[in-house]
Amino acid sequence: MEELLKDFPVVIEVPVAWGDMDAFQHVNNTVYFRFFESARIAYFEKIDLMGLMQEIGIGPILAAAHCRFKIPLTYPDRVSVGARVISTGEDRFTMAYVAVSHRHGKIAALGEGELVVFDYGKNYKAAMPDVLRDRIAEVEKGSQVQV
Amino acid sequence: MEELLKDFPVVIEVPVAWGDMDAFQHVNNTVYFRFFESARIAYFEKIDLMGLMQEIGIGPILAAAHCRFKIPLTYPDRVSVGARVISTGEDRFTMAYVAVSHRHGKIAALGEGELVVFDYGKNYKAAMPDVLRDRIAEVEKGSQVQV
Amino acid sequence: MEELLKDFPVVIEVPVAWGDMDAFQHVNNTVYFRFFESARIAYFEKIDLMGLMQEIGIGPILAAAHCRFKIPLTYPDRVSVGARVISTGEDRFTMAYVAVSHRHGKIAALGEGELVVFDYGKNYKAAMPDVLRDRIAEVEKGSQVQV
Amino acid sequence: MEELLKDFPVVIEVPVAWGDMDAFQHVNNTVYFRFFESARIAYFEKIDLMGLMQEIGIGPILAAAHCRFKIPLTYPDRVSVGARVISTGEDRFTMAYVAVSHRHGKIAALGEGELVVFDYGKNYKAAMPDVLRDRIAEVEKGSQVQV
Repeated sequence: MEELLKDFPVVIEVPVAWGDMDAFQHVNNTVYFRFFESARIAYFEKIDLMGLMQEIGIGPILAAAHCRFKIPLTYPDRVSVGARVISTGEDRFTMAYVAVSHRHGKIAALGEGELVVFDYGKNYKAAMPDVLRDRIAEVEKGSQVQV
Repeated sequence: MEELLKDFPVVIEVPVAWGDMDAFQHVNNTVYFRFFESARIAYFEKIDLMGLMQEIGIGPILAAAHCRFKIPLTYPDRVSVGARVISTGEDRFTMAYVAVSHRHGKIAALGEGELVVFDYGKNYKAAMPDVLRDRIAEVEKGSQVQV
Repeated sequence: MEELLKDFPVVIEVPVAWGDMDAFQHVNNTVYFRFFESARIAYFEKIDLMGLMQEIGIGPILAAAHCRFKIPLTYPDRVSVGARVISTGEDRFTMAYVAVSHRHGKIAALGEGELVVFDYGKNYKAAMPDVLRDRIAEVEKGSQVQV
Repeated sequence: MEELLKDFPVVIEVPVAWGDMDAFQHVNNTVYFRFFESARIAYFEKIDLMGLMQEIGIGPILAAAHCRFKIPLTYPDRVSVGARVISTGEDRFTMAYVAVSHRHGKIAALGEGELVVFDYGKNYKAAMPDVLRDRIAEVEKGSQVQV
């Protein structure tokens, strides 16, 4: 499992709830996006993005989300969810996620999210500030070292 | 709004619940995938896919899901969600979804889902049966006529 | 169905989503509280409670919630959910809810909620303002007339 | 915290997800019922109720659910949720739940659930089987010993 998560500088662990399953008796597809969201928020905390939002009035907005389902999850299980930034652009960055099932010791799902940098004052997208770029680079450098 | 939905042979209408919003005071990203799921199930009913599952032991499994968020939704609003099949392969088909905000009269989100045909007896993916291909073609033909 | 809802001055209608069902293939118990919440918010809109919150800094906090499940709901169905205020106290009021299944033409669940009036400035519960008491009385009087 | 949970023979621990919060920026009321459900299922596992369901075709149905909210939960936090059976009747039993916030070291919510014993073959409620009564007594005796 560590091998599957080694490229991800932020990893959270979540129990699968019985109520996460739907009538097909697998964890419902929407729950995987909740898993990715929780890992995304943990990543944002690591770079203190919320602090940055309050300081300079700029924050991320989810512009696109993707998930590829590899193994159906069922209760009981625990899931480790990793998040990393795989590219940064002028006004956006892309995150990759992985959800690893403890029960199976395998990847249950792979995800991606596109985050647009938004200026809440101007109510319009903004250039990605250097401080954000730097903080992401620092966190991701750490993960390279782990590798 | 009809123009935005005209290519979709199956359209459902859903109220946005206050509780669909998260702490950022927009409808949470996972809820869009619930919208798409509801439209997908309505499409499956139109081609009686559940009946087919029981008859020949074959059914669809969601292999991938995607959403591009265009406008943040807020309560109160109503959403019309369209579903269509945009391609069929040897053992899978791809659906496209659109979620249209009544309040804005605009597309709130675009989605896609990849469905793999699964043989529950063999516990393995299966060739797409002709009857399923035919039923999809018939439903989609109807939508072309609407156009 | 009208008979079942006649004492409720606020009634909303909600489709049951396929994804509301859990692994027991009934609508999950948490969803009933979402139904009641949606009806509660609609009631708050009717008495412009949000406006009142902004004007005088006072709002309701859910202190207790109760549900008695009468019939298991399944997809597909539509539910009409009624909300009314059944008692008002010094610093709180009690709402009653009913969820009526269209498919069965019967009550699916009965609920209650206790709302405490909260002063956001003092961060403490507050005496119920007369204006709130009056607005509730007016809405509830209307429902008596319907009867 | 141990003191708060000592009467509960089954305790689970759950992280609060950012997405559990609603537009009022507190954990939404429906999530507490999900917490209680997860603890209830863990209790059912401890008495192997699912095994019993398959053996003798009898299982529990949630007839009523109640929650008293004591402290608003927010992300980030972790919650320990305890479940116990506080009474058994002819054809039903009552569970009590507690949700303890790690951040506050206090009770966030108290809950109760009424479970009716149901015979799936007869599609009607059934007398509570002795084996179920015995297993509950054994689990609850254990909790007394802890005290």
